Amino acid sequence: MDLLLTYDVDTTTPEGRRRLRKVAKLCEGYGLRVQKSVFEIVADEVDLLQLIDDIDNIIDADSDSIRIYRLPHGGFENVRTMGVAQLQAHRQDLVL
Amino acid sequence: MDLLLTYDVDTTTPEGRRRLRKVAKLCEGYGLRVQKSVFEIVADEVDLLQLIDDIDNIIDADSDSIRIYRLPHGGFENVRTMGVAQLQAHRQDLVL
Repeated sequence: MDLLLTYDVDTTTPEGRRRLRKVAKLCEGYGLRVQKSVFEIVADEVDLLQLIDDIDNIIDADSDSIRIYRLPHGGFENVRTMGVAQLQAHRQDLVL
Repeated sequence: MDLLLTYDVDTTTPEGRRRLRKVAKLCEGYGLRVQKSVFEIVADEVDLLQLIDDIDNIIDADSDSIRIYRLPHGGFENVRTMGVAQLQAHRQDLVL
């Protein structure tokens, strides 16, 4: 599955920045960090449940917000970018 | 079209916060702000071109990043949420 995970966390506090770093590190195991708190993730249902479980242990459920959207197949390529945003190649795209 | 727009902007500066406010106001004309810089947008191709044009006049193209993903039909309902995130009803969902 191609997924888009967005994380809303207060980065004005050291604790918030620490949680963002931890979530980013986790998500980068499954895909790419395309913005400070937006991640393109490739995962099957089992990976996703594991990821959700791991994230659950990091975030502050009383203040943070995580949203995980399912994209259509090829959804990472079908994105309009503006400013410094760029299309980014996922690992599987690089296989010859 | 159901779209997801994510905006990466440095909110540690007053100028960045001002741009975020302006982009948010624009996007809220087409949908919902579901996180500080994530917007669920319903737009046809004409609306989208207008929105892109308007955003282009607000953002700093040398530092800000905008990504606009196309979601599958019903993609706003097919989202996993964690923490304080919630499913949010779009206007068209409320029509009886």
